[in-house]
Amino acid sequence: MSNTFTSITNHQVRLAKRPEGTPKRDDWSFTTESAGQPADGGVLVQTLSLSLDPAMRGWMNEGKSYIPPVELGAVMRAGGIGRVVFSRNAAFAVGDVVYGTLGVQEYCLVAQEEIKRSGLTKIDLRAGTVGQWLNVLGMPGMTAYFGLMDVGLPQAGETLVVSGAAGAVGQTVGQLAKIKGCRVVGIAGGAAKCDWVVKELGFDACIDYKAGPAAVREGLKEHCPKGVDIYFDNVGGDILDAVLARLARGARIIICGAISQYNNTTPVQGPKNYLSLLVNRARMQGIVVFDYADRYHLAAAEMAGYLKDGRMKSREDVVEGGVAAFPEALLKLFTGENFGKLVLKVAD
Amino acid sequence: MSNTFTSITNHQVRLAKRPEGTPKRDDWSFTTESAGQPADGGVLVQTLSLSLDPAMRGWMNEGKSYIPPVELGAVMRAGGIGRVVFSRNAAFAVGDVVYGTLGVQEYCLVAQEEIKRSGLTKIDLRAGTVGQWLNVLGMPGMTAYFGLMDVGLPQAGETLVVSGAAGAVGQTVGQLAKIKGCRVVGIAGGAAKCDWVVKELGFDACIDYKAGPAAVREGLKEHCPKGVDIYFDNVGGDILDAVLARLARGARIIICGAISQYNNTTPVQGPKNYLSLLVNRARMQGIVVFDYADRYHLAAAEMAGYLKDGRMKSREDVVEGGVAAFPEALLKLFTGENFGKLVLKVAD
Repeated sequence: MSNTFTSITNHQVRLAKRPEGTPKRDDWSFTTESAGQPADGGVLVQTLSLSLDPAMRGWMNEGKSYIPPVELGAVMRAGGIGRVVFSRNAAFAVGDVVYGTLGVQEYCLVAQEEIKRSGLTKIDLRAGTVGQWLNVLGMPGMTAYFGLMDVGLPQAGETLVVSGAAGAVGQTVGQLAKIKGCRVVGIAGGAAKCDWVVKELGFDACIDYKAGPAAVREGLKEHCPKGVDIYFDNVGGDILDAVLARLARGARIIICGAISQYNNTTPVQGPKNYLSLLVNRARMQGIVVFDYADRYHLAAAEMAGYLKDGRMKSREDVVEGGVAAFPEALLKLFTGENFGKLVLKVAD
Repeated sequence: MSNTFTSITNHQVRLAKRPEGTPKRDDWSFTTESAGQPADGGVLVQTLSLSLDPAMRGWMNEGKSYIPPVELGAVMRAGGIGRVVFSRNAAFAVGDVVYGTLGVQEYCLVAQEEIKRSGLTKIDLRAGTVGQWLNVLGMPGMTAYFGLMDVGLPQAGETLVVSGAAGAVGQTVGQLAKIKGCRVVGIAGGAAKCDWVVKELGFDACIDYKAGPAAVREGLKEHCPKGVDIYFDNVGGDILDAVLARLARGARIIICGAISQYNNTTPVQGPKNYLSLLVNRARMQGIVVFDYADRYHLAAAEMAGYLKDGRMKSREDVVEGGVAAFPEALLKLFTGENFGKLVLKVAD
């Protein structure tokens, strides 16, 4: 059997340079290797789909963060779903579908000592599709769940605003907040996304930030007449400032990301309205989803229930073309071109 | 008796214009009136000492804040300590020493229906001097106490940094954090203040921000080798950014003020390192002392104990000259010239 697998070809995308600003094609290198075969205790996983996330941009930068940067020359880090094609570990059988940090490559060889670190976990396709396991039931969904529930502390009747409302995290934040009884106002780019968020996902309103900063300010005023109790921030920049200016007393801001700032070549734009935290006795708190790993299964079970009963929808934007399409596909996140959770399909 | 009192002359300082930037002499007007006499249920209070606070600058601006702005033409708002000189209210006797929002004037006539709103409370000079009642036992002390205890949640062994360390709030924050078992690092302006904070108040270290931004960064690195668990921010601006860059995981930032930004004629400088909140799962929260009014007496009792046993020191910077000296005295806060709690003495 091992002879079969040593002949498997593995295409990989590696980080060649630390990008300045928006990542360019020559920040990446493309390699072709043998997939190799696992030693005792290891598994070989074939990548089915990869999750493309705003956080990836941060992993490309040098310097301390909540996770070490991707080293130059290393396969780009990516979470994904794959199928076990070779196993020398009793916990995984050939054919098992797994989630893990597979990287931007067609096959991922996981040694026994790396199984935990790469978060390799079997997933149950009866609870959700591969797409849903990368979205509502995966990292974006977990980020939405724990950010909202543990930091946002939603109370029925409160007003929640979420930016990146049509994105992977935002769509789930808004739907979950509706389930918890909040009034939900999204902020998204373009009429199509705003319409979808309101008509398909059931948000109470959605503000099109592409209509300009004045439209965002006016929209917040109109749709949040009593102020904003919870703001789930995925974007930073001017939108964060606009929401700060509309906080209700005792508001909670969840800092989940700042996609407007990730490709900056100048310093990050600090929220000049941050003293609204003082005036309104409000709180701004950062969240990193990995901290909640021991409760993922509970959140996923709750969310799977909402998917089943139709209260939660999951939209993925699937890019075909395999790992070679990764560099361009990733950029859709920063132009706001993606519509729903961005997924790169690598194999069927 | 009423004849005596109607002849009392009252000098007052009123807000004539909304200042742009640093308040100037002609932003004020000076009036001389009869002190008047209280109707049934009211009291007349002679001002002894007034508290000069950074927050006053905010009260001069138009627009929504945690408290309405001082109206143009009105006596400038100020907390202070006075002596009841005429009383038609059974709760107050002539000779009682009281704290309240007396305003920048020599006499304050408080009608019955205004007694609660002006926070008129008898104080016990056995627990502390007039100066201490405007400092450790007064608003700055209460701000320090509830900001630190309720928002900062100090644990023994943690590292706390406080800016404006020699100021009214900062000196108490640092001493209280020491009592609670923290390692305490101050940030203050000039060698004299830094020396005093370390030698007299017992802080573990104090960084002189007047030595420049690089010195602040280096000082934080040196004195907070494990990062900053709690930052009590009185100043905002570059110092807030420098501390954000050194946060420990799970850090709490108390936003108490931003004196570096109060006289800005340009927008407030937002903290460009705010994404450190995300990386470090940290929290930034605003505090307004008035929210804790129903627990002032408990905090004051605890602090009076520390004053008695010598673990807490209280330093006031007393300006003589009466209400006429108010405009110039206030500016000492913004130049950093004051050393300890700034108090304007109005009468003996």
